[in-house]
Amino acid sequence: MKLDKNTRILIVGLGLIGGSYAMGFKKQGYHVNAIDIDPDSIAYAIENKLIDRGSAEADADMIGQADLCIFALYPHIFKTWIKEHQSKFRPGAVLSDVTGIKSPIVYDIQDMLRPDVEFVAAHPMAGKEVYGVRNSDDRIFRQANYIVVPTDRNTFNAIEICKGIGETLGFARISSLPPKAHDEMIGFVSQLTHIIAMCLMTCSKSEHLVDYTGDSFRDLTRIARINENMWSELFLLNKDALLSEIKTFSDELGEIYEILKNEDEAALKEKMRISTARRALFDKNRPEV
Amino acid sequence: MKLDKNTRILIVGLGLIGGSYAMGFKKQGYHVNAIDIDPDSIAYAIENKLIDRGSAEADADMIGQADLCIFALYPHIFKTWIKEHQSKFRPGAVLSDVTGIKSPIVYDIQDMLRPDVEFVAAHPMAGKEVYGVRNSDDRIFRQANYIVVPTDRNTFNAIEICKGIGETLGFARISSLPPKAHDEMIGFVSQLTHIIAMCLMTCSKSEHLVDYTGDSFRDLTRIARINENMWSELFLLNKDALLSEIKTFSDELGEIYEILKNEDEAALKEKMRISTARRALFDKNRPEV
Repeated sequence: MKLDKNTRILIVGLGLIGGSYAMGFKKQGYHVNAIDIDPDSIAYAIENKLIDRGSAEADADMIGQADLCIFALYPHIFKTWIKEHQSKFRPGAVLSDVTGIKSPIVYDIQDMLRPDVEFVAAHPMAGKEVYGVRNSDDRIFRQANYIVVPTDRNTFNAIEICKGIGETLGFARISSLPPKAHDEMIGFVSQLTHIIAMCLMTCSKSEHLVDYTGDSFRDLTRIARINENMWSELFLLNKDALLSEIKTFSDELGEIYEILKNEDEAALKEKMRISTARRALFDKNRPEV
Repeated sequence: MKLDKNTRILIVGLGLIGGSYAMGFKKQGYHVNAIDIDPDSIAYAIENKLIDRGSAEADADMIGQADLCIFALYPHIFKTWIKEHQSKFRPGAVLSDVTGIKSPIVYDIQDMLRPDVEFVAAHPMAGKEVYGVRNSDDRIFRQANYIVVPTDRNTFNAIEICKGIGETLGFARISSLPPKAHDEMIGFVSQLTHIIAMCLMTCSKSEHLVDYTGDSFRDLTRIARINENMWSELFLLNKDALLSEIKTFSDELGEIYEILKNEDEAALKEKMRISTARRALFDKNRPEV
């Protein structure tokens, strides 16, 4: 099997990301079906031509027709779903996902999965501060990273199909990381930043200062509108890595606190120079819009 | 004196903010002169019609003609400049500034100033990650806050003129705060956020992760490109307030660390709900674009 216009795609979980995947694939001319527990989400997606057909149940025919099944579910629901419905996959089907955390998912899924079906994990690093299929928007992928997270069990062919998802949806950058490295990276660049944004909002001062916030504060807290069910699950699944990243950041903050307390102007400027130089690299490497 | 088209404006310090002020006033039909130590900045500003006339020296005639002098200098240079050149102001001139920190500036300036000239402090909460007159852009004021920071010594009339600067330049919101409250607020919404952005870049991990940064990380580190001379001066001048804000933030981060360590899902979700609700208020209060 290769990923091309004849590949029949099934998306399981039609939230913001599942819906945006559907939108992207449909625009490229693919046949896309979807399963979601919420009949309204399915009805909306059909009406707005995000999908061809949909079901609010784990319809055996629909699952059996799919060459490629992409799971956009909360981690614990994903595992349960596979356990209950994997007998319905067609032999040779390829599975992938969009889950934001990998080690606690990918090995368990691969362990329990039928040998004639293959799961390759992937993480589209894209999102918005709104939820649900009604906010679907495949433009969120255009400047984003798509990370394939294979294990030793994955075949070259299935990994290529998984990369093809990222290519088809127009991600700016496609790369590959092992599960552990992925989770550590995500602990730093995504989870720690969400924790920091939360902290800025929950620490005592913020309530009174809404009238005075400038762009800096708005930038740092954009992601403070956070879906507590999804993110608490992702944080707890990645607990060890995330605790370590918070510690690293806290230690650095403590160091800057001491520098300031000691009025060590030279050390403060040196930190600023490092910060400026590293951030400049980020802008340089940014894909063109 | 009232602020109107007959008011002759002098801007001292033609950097990004001084240049953007000049641009904004010129667009409104004001006569704007400028003094800057760098002759190239003056030449650029004249050539690009940001100012009418300019000088690379503290020209006595030019200073003596100004009804309103706005200082866009580093804090320590501002004080020295006033000390050396205040004999050149015309009687009744009103002075204002754009300095990001107030208590360590405003009282000293008012103490040393001639009694026939009045200084009203103001802080335009606007900026960009680029510097110098060549990046002047008065659009940066349009969604920004302008804060007048008067003391007991200021007159109603001069405060009105100072507010008029913010109105003329098209700031979205004009408000007033005493120096101490201003500095504490700035310590939280601006200086702490810059410290956090720096910390994210200087702590060990960031160097290797440029390939994987998503929007969250980019948002939180946009302001990590930081002018070390200006910001180290502002941080050190506001040391006590800033140390206190770092402490408040650190304590909250420590609390979330413990919640995560103890896998206290209910407490974690509660923090997320508070964060989401408060951030939603910010969006609601945002001035229309």
